[in-house]
Amino acid sequence: MPSLSQKSNQLPSSPIRKLSPFAEKAKKEGKKIYHLNIGQPDIETPPIFWETLRKIDKKVLEYSPSNGYEQLRIKYSHFFKNKYQINLNPSEILITCGASEALLFSFFSILDEGDEIIATDPIYANYIGFANAGGINLVSVTTNIDNGFALPDMETFEKAITDKTKAILICNPSNPTGYFYTATELERLKDIALKHDLFIISDEVYRDFVYDGQFKSMLEFPELEQHVILVDSLSKRFSITGGRIGMVASKNKEVIAAILKFAQQRLSPPGLAQEAAIGLFDLEEDYFLAVKAEYIKRRDTLVAGLNEIPGVICPNPGGAFYCMVQFPVKDTDHYCQWLLESFDYNGETVMMAPGGGFYVNPLNGKNQVRVAYVLNCEDLKKAIMILGKSLEVYKTQFG
Amino acid sequence: MPSLSQKSNQLPSSPIRKLSPFAEKAKKEGKKIYHLNIGQPDIETPPIFWETLRKIDKKVLEYSPSNGYEQLRIKYSHFFKNKYQINLNPSEILITCGASEALLFSFFSILDEGDEIIATDPIYANYIGFANAGGINLVSVTTNIDNGFALPDMETFEKAITDKTKAILICNPSNPTGYFYTATELERLKDIALKHDLFIISDEVYRDFVYDGQFKSMLEFPELEQHVILVDSLSKRFSITGGRIGMVASKNKEVIAAILKFAQQRLSPPGLAQEAAIGLFDLEEDYFLAVKAEYIKRRDTLVAGLNEIPGVICPNPGGAFYCMVQFPVKDTDHYCQWLLESFDYNGETVMMAPGGGFYVNPLNGKNQVRVAYVLNCEDLKKAIMILGKSLEVYKTQFG
Repeated sequence: MPSLSQKSNQLPSSPIRKLSPFAEKAKKEGKKIYHLNIGQPDIETPPIFWETLRKIDKKVLEYSPSNGYEQLRIKYSHFFKNKYQINLNPSEILITCGASEALLFSFFSILDEGDEIIATDPIYANYIGFANAGGINLVSVTTNIDNGFALPDMETFEKAITDKTKAILICNPSNPTGYFYTATELERLKDIALKHDLFIISDEVYRDFVYDGQFKSMLEFPELEQHVILVDSLSKRFSITGGRIGMVASKNKEVIAAILKFAQQRLSPPGLAQEAAIGLFDLEEDYFLAVKAEYIKRRDTLVAGLNEIPGVICPNPGGAFYCMVQFPVKDTDHYCQWLLESFDYNGETVMMAPGGGFYVNPLNGKNQVRVAYVLNCEDLKKAIMILGKSLEVYKTQFG
Repeated sequence: MPSLSQKSNQLPSSPIRKLSPFAEKAKKEGKKIYHLNIGQPDIETPPIFWETLRKIDKKVLEYSPSNGYEQLRIKYSHFFKNKYQINLNPSEILITCGASEALLFSFFSILDEGDEIIATDPIYANYIGFANAGGINLVSVTTNIDNGFALPDMETFEKAITDKTKAILICNPSNPTGYFYTATELERLKDIALKHDLFIISDEVYRDFVYDGQFKSMLEFPELEQHVILVDSLSKRFSITGGRIGMVASKNKEVIAAILKFAQQRLSPPGLAQEAAIGLFDLEEDYFLAVKAEYIKRRDTLVAGLNEIPGVICPNPGGAFYCMVQFPVKDTDHYCQWLLESFDYNGETVMMAPGGGFYVNPLNGKNQVRVAYVLNCEDLKKAIMILGKSLEVYKTQFG
């Protein structure tokens, strides 16, 4: 039998999904599971999405343009201008199959095999996979739970930069930590990019989920126009993760031209959700304010509740709907699997994503988990209570 | 300004889409264009698709499973079993964002940078792009318009095989030639794969568009169960190209496990079209027979018409809805662009895909074009007439 590629052998399983078989089994056994493992918002998709979808009236479901429907790109362009003072014309915007594809195309466009990209650790686990697919070396700059995963200083970044470094990859606010970068930190990133002539791939998928302060995009720095590749998505903003509507944008014409070539290879992004999404941009600001208020309640519930459990440390994240939480166990891979396989409290248990998979060096996250607070406060409280109970049992069994 | 990747500089533009700006300009000038450049069927999407879509009743458009909805995979499994004697259970099937993603994941799973894959030239242009993205060397085995692009003999393949060769990539029936492999040729592919222990990536997207004979899948060879990676799509079969529903399947458990890991990185395939597609599998065989009858008429119209133009050579393709056609010009890149920019016949002209982009060595296709016969017979006849007229003018201008 012929052998697989090394890159597929080296690719770690997704920490968000690898425990799914155990969850399936637990469900079949009748257990109720609180899902804190995946960023699947429970917020309802706005009705206008479904209404627009039902009104699609065409004879043939054709390919859309490779860069997406122009009407959607125009809406996106207005959205950036009106809400964020970002000037992007529709030709500088390209619709992708989720932010995932936007990241993959960004990598392909600027990085060759063996090139390096610097990212703060812990990072969104799937970045590791995308880098692997492109044969790219992801070089990590470690952040620390003790200061809530703040951006390291310039010197730390400079130690990581080599002549192979082509880009810095950030996610603001961060998946998986929820950390929201300060103005000073963004300035620092700008200075590093300019000094060392690096691209910045800025994943701003959670831009609308900022709880303490005002969001600023890397594209708002005029000096960085040629350096920034902006990644965005409608998935979280409008609770349409299954629609797979992402976006990549840049003022750098060469970058957008290169990304378009990769986009043409796969012909087009998904058509139906693109059309249905057009109406979403007309939602009033009230919609976001209500969503944000709900997430602030959830965050406050989660952070307060988790920190009350002996040995658990949960920083207070400023954005997104994740936090990296330290648990008083030796190996969260084991603990999270055990929660699904061997534990329940009155028939209920909790699924979380083990922290190791969010680190370039998994050992750094051995006692952490990523929690997505995408459940309502009542369910969050129950999940926290179950976690507290579980630790009492786990400690007696595994010390 | 930081520089792009070499792989993006080397990536050719899609021959199918690179002339689009000229087509847009011609349309704005009021010209009518007959599109023979792209495999976008004009056959209506079956109404059941739209009906199922409108009935989707959920509060949140969630991620689907990374390998696609189980219900769709079950339908696919039955389809293969009932119509093609292929035994695939749903866990051996993985839904992708178009066949494009299926190919990309197949490449990632078995090929590392520098590994080689053998494909018959001319090939589907986007294969070249996918190989480029993965840093893979596409080694071509040239076929010839004089025998309708038949499969080369074993010796020719063996000359191309090195210790870096991991797979053979075929498309049957072929995009771009429409060639439909004979039973003897499939046996030959089997023998080569077994003798040299190679994977076969078998792109069978056009399996339902076979006009002379019975389709046989590479997965129908029991000896090849561990070697074959099957790529399929619903795009052409049901005229839902914009839905982006592709598929990859293998009896090789390691391969499917590796592909699943890559699939998890991008979270999920598009959700809406997956759900709407489920109803399509219940269409009666009459649907396919009617579609097939229509394409046979179109093929016959096209082949007869083109071969009547002095200097044009068009083989008679046995499947799909493409053919590679030789034109009496030196450079079809120039000719096809000229058709859009500088020619019209009573305000009408034709768009075709220049042949060079379908060859690993573009020079081999300099006097060929790919024609997609996705228009009704009346329009095809007009397009052929316009092409005849255009050649008379072109010859006087460019010899």
